[in-house]
Amino acid sequence: MLNFDEARFVRIQSGAVAHANGIRSALAACLDQGAKNLFFLGTGGAGILMMPAAQLLQRSSTFPTYLEMPAELVLTGHQALGPNSIVVIPSLSGTTKESVEVMEYCKAKGAKVISLIGHAEAPLAKGADYPFVNFAEDDTSCESFYLQSLLIALTIMDLRGEYPEYVNTVQELVRLPHALLEVKRGVEERAERFAEEIKNEPYHIVTGAGTTWPEAFYYGMCILEEMQWIRTRPVHASDFFHGTLELVEKGVSVLLFKGEDASRPLVERVERFLPEYTDKIRVLDTAEFALPGISEKVRALISPVVLATILERISAHLEVKRNHPLTTRRYYKRVAY
Amino acid sequence: MLNFDEARFVRIQSGAVAHANGIRSALAACLDQGAKNLFFLGTGGAGILMMPAAQLLQRSSTFPTYLEMPAELVLTGHQALGPNSIVVIPSLSGTTKESVEVMEYCKAKGAKVISLIGHAEAPLAKGADYPFVNFAEDDTSCESFYLQSLLIALTIMDLRGEYPEYVNTVQELVRLPHALLEVKRGVEERAERFAEEIKNEPYHIVTGAGTTWPEAFYYGMCILEEMQWIRTRPVHASDFFHGTLELVEKGVSVLLFKGEDASRPLVERVERFLPEYTDKIRVLDTAEFALPGISEKVRALISPVVLATILERISAHLEVKRNHPLTTRRYYKRVAY
Repeated sequence: MLNFDEARFVRIQSGAVAHANGIRSALAACLDQGAKNLFFLGTGGAGILMMPAAQLLQRSSTFPTYLEMPAELVLTGHQALGPNSIVVIPSLSGTTKESVEVMEYCKAKGAKVISLIGHAEAPLAKGADYPFVNFAEDDTSCESFYLQSLLIALTIMDLRGEYPEYVNTVQELVRLPHALLEVKRGVEERAERFAEEIKNEPYHIVTGAGTTWPEAFYYGMCILEEMQWIRTRPVHASDFFHGTLELVEKGVSVLLFKGEDASRPLVERVERFLPEYTDKIRVLDTAEFALPGISEKVRALISPVVLATILERISAHLEVKRNHPLTTRRYYKRVAY
Repeated sequence: MLNFDEARFVRIQSGAVAHANGIRSALAACLDQGAKNLFFLGTGGAGILMMPAAQLLQRSSTFPTYLEMPAELVLTGHQALGPNSIVVIPSLSGTTKESVEVMEYCKAKGAKVISLIGHAEAPLAKGADYPFVNFAEDDTSCESFYLQSLLIALTIMDLRGEYPEYVNTVQELVRLPHALLEVKRGVEERAERFAEEIKNEPYHIVTGAGTTWPEAFYYGMCILEEMQWIRTRPVHASDFFHGTLELVEKGVSVLLFKGEDASRPLVERVERFLPEYTDKIRVLDTAEFALPGISEKVRALISPVVLATILERISAHLEVKRNHPLTTRRYYKRVAY
């Protein structure tokens, strides 16, 4: 595989899953101390990656769960945030300024802070009640964040008697890093072709639904826009039909991300609509990839993880073909904001 | 004013505010019957327009409130949806297929349905427990939906003792339609210049925060994309710094929507960043407009209403200058989806 360290990948994703016990202890302690709700507070892409876990809790658990943007929360406040809140703050660097600020804000309110970070020395590691350090970099952080936040959601549900399959699911997730590695190996050639095909596209509509919508949003904003300076329009597959579809015509690229959760028909609806109107439809479908030892139920939960793993291979080829390193920025962390 | 019927505008917005008593009776009945939570379930733009009210309840009331997309909700289900749910479904036509489906879905779960529609004969009027009919069209529906959903949020809070200023606020809102008309009159010339300036732009980044973020999202998707076929990238002013900013360079248009709620500093942060990197910064700031008889507290609540009222004037000029009627569609309601 191009520019890829297989052992490092498995080590990082296994590191994420290995936090299962620590996450369980932390959440059990919080619940024992009377925690009554949970906030996911990630900035930018890290916040987007919390969406599948937040939606899982909101839709399947009676434990009140909120997803807010740190920069906005510290200005608006929130009635539910207080001593009985668990706050989850993900930040790979552990230094994102909005996230550090929201940690201080939440601590001042008496909330218990769980941080998901890549470095033990970062402010978000040192300041949290329960820091979970798992070293990753941009090429490996998506899966790691998705998995850790999923473990948080499943653990909350299990501790409250809402997810009896917890033990089996975690056993399956332990197998996942190796299964994801096989996905990467299997998709490598296709990823190169995909990158070749899109390398000169100036604009993409990127869509998904359910658990794949956050990945469409993330890939558009944090990879194509931030790391490749390509214009995108991330749009939920339901919203697609209420505005953005009017932009579709011959030559307009649409990227469709299909997962295996209940929302899949919404992406299929876009897929059926497009062929008559554009010749540039690119579909990534997690269902095409074998994941030995992973049940259907868990496949539905980890569809965005599989997509992130495929997309990283596409990005790896894209930066070479476009001679535009994924690490180059015009502004972010170069100029103040 | 260009293509504008002043009396009709005031009649429509006054019609929205005049539902205050009906909304109060409906919600009081729901709460008396044991309602325990509320869902805003709008499709596409109508859903976006519910966001300020949903966020107000989520952040300021302990009454559990959810904002979901109808097309997705019927596939995924939701733990909190049931006989103790109040469901608010906005749809101007009253026929949006996803919204009709979600009404049936919610009714089957025993929820009480409040619909906000433009026509008394529409399925969403006839099928709802509490239909609120206020005729409007695309040029007047934004303000109407914002105002009706705001009344729902404030009423819920008042009935639960969470908003003691309710009576005063409603009195102020009664004055608002005439104040908005003055805003339109005052902004007309500037709106024409604005439209002239942007008429040939092929792409806009559109941003806002707090109550103005939904209007940025809506104006990008439902006006510029759907009605003018212009590419946009609606992005929250916090997310802006975590990806989309890398696209900014000389010649890239950025539309900034500033309101008067607590999130205003997030838009100002973008405004401070931009001048060094692009020459095409267009700011709409509600604070520049007088609203006689409207207090600061209410101004913060109705910032998106004021923006919608200004933007409608810009759109009215845009369709003429671009010779592209706002009603022309390639696909929506022309081909099946």
